Amino acid sequence: MITGRATVYAIIGDPVAHVRTPMVFNARFEAGGHDAVLVPLLVPLATLARTLDGLRTLGNFGGCVVTAPLKGPCASLCDVLEGNGRLAGAVNALRREPDGRLVGDLFDGLGFVAGLRAHGHEPHGRRVFIAGAGGAGTALAFALAGAGAAALTIHNRTADKAGSLAERVHAAFPACEVRAAGPDPGGHDIAVNATALGLQPDDPMPFDVASLEPATLAAEVIMKPETTAMLHAAAARGCRIHQGRHMLDGQAALLAGFLAMPGAPA
Amino acid sequence: MITGRATVYAIIGDPVAHVRTPMVFNARFEAGGHDAVLVPLLVPLATLARTLDGLRTLGNFGGCVVTAPLKGPCASLCDVLEGNGRLAGAVNALRREPDGRLVGDLFDGLGFVAGLRAHGHEPHGRRVFIAGAGGAGTALAFALAGAGAAALTIHNRTADKAGSLAERVHAAFPACEVRAAGPDPGGHDIAVNATALGLQPDDPMPFDVASLEPATLAAEVIMKPETTAMLHAAAARGCRIHQGRHMLDGQAALLAGFLAMPGAPA
Repeated sequence: MITGRATVYAIIGDPVAHVRTPMVFNARFEAGGHDAVLVPLLVPLATLARTLDGLRTLGNFGGCVVTAPLKGPCASLCDVLEGNGRLAGAVNALRREPDGRLVGDLFDGLGFVAGLRAHGHEPHGRRVFIAGAGGAGTALAFALAGAGAAALTIHNRTADKAGSLAERVHAAFPACEVRAAGPDPGGHDIAVNATALGLQPDDPMPFDVASLEPATLAAEVIMKPETTAMLHAAAARGCRIHQGRHMLDGQAALLAGFLAMPGAPA
Repeated sequence: MITGRATVYAIIGDPVAHVRTPMVFNARFEAGGHDAVLVPLLVPLATLARTLDGLRTLGNFGGCVVTAPLKGPCASLCDVLEGNGRLAGAVNALRREPDGRLVGDLFDGLGFVAGLRAHGHEPHGRRVFIAGAGGAGTALAFALAGAGAAALTIHNRTADKAGSLAERVHAAFPACEVRAAGPDPGGHDIAVNATALGLQPDDPMPFDVASLEPATLAAEVIMKPETTAMLHAAAARGCRIHQGRHMLDGQAALLAGFLAMPGAPA
């Protein structure tokens, strides 16, 4: 039951028709008996600045979850960048402070780490191979380095992008050995696909699955299909697998806390 | 169940904590199985222009209901003013067109007329006494004249304001005899309080109740208390009475239609 006293949250993106965020958080609000609601807002990139300027003026607006293609642009438009949001230059959550300032942070990578841990896979001290140096790869690299991974190997089709990300991550976390390399995941404890390859049935593999060792955990960020061709191939080689949906599961509590949602731990 | 495809509506005002609009419309959406939601947005007058500029950019924003103190200011900021909104210079609904334009109209007075009719009181051809020439009085005057009232008598503490409203209403509806006058409701078929007098228990009467004839219908715009001191006094004189809540009941369908809400008649 939404009353006139409700706190309003949003998820912004273009498109937003596919997002499951309203269902996830409204179910939490309803279960907790909280007078709050999260609504989808279709925000074209071209008018993002006007939208944020309007939203920040709303006295009962709590903040928003941010999805593609707005994660980078929102980082440039918020007033304060925190944590991984500042490191990655992208945010997936904006909190509205009572004075109207927007504070941004990025929880995609932390959600991935939380998902790993929830399934008994501690990344601390591990060697991790990441395919992809785009938005997801960047988020994962900073979060895994921050979680104490011993080494990160970043593979990207455009090698320069992997090299530049490797430098930024190593500069932020000097204790983590970070390098750009080719598509061979051999010698790693965890190999994760952070590219879009696997969304379509005829996509090529995101890395050389034939080089996966049976002891390596094969992980995904892709949520649909639940088990990608890469995960199927890894399982066939005897690897344990970790689905993309665990990244989202691990993230809901982090977002609720950051956005100061009712019922979230302070 | 709000999905990523939901159409989002709002009620804007300051304060909004007291409004019942979200309950009324969300119950309608739920009953009809529509993927739509109406949320309260606390919009300070000082930042209204920024809020509207942000809202108009949202691809899935359907529009909003407008409450105090934003009805006049919203009329100045919308792109198109229709019907009674244009006549009264105030709006209580803004529809967002697919191209982002905001179209405003005012349904307070039409809601009052619809409420009268729903209770068997046809204003066409009647002589109506209105106490109050503020926002509510203005809305009622234009709507009653538009509904074919034969004559309107407008009483206001500041007589000039009643005179100016009377001139505007007569100019728009020359067939209706409109005049400003004192607090005597004698000789009218309907006498309606459109002032705030009656909200507080020790308020003076909005007009001379002692001059009410038993054949006159005594009507209110005040919703709380449900039966004001004026209505009690009118009933004691043998008048039929008509509560303020009927204005809202009569208005929901009009707003749903104007805002092109799912389930509303086209």
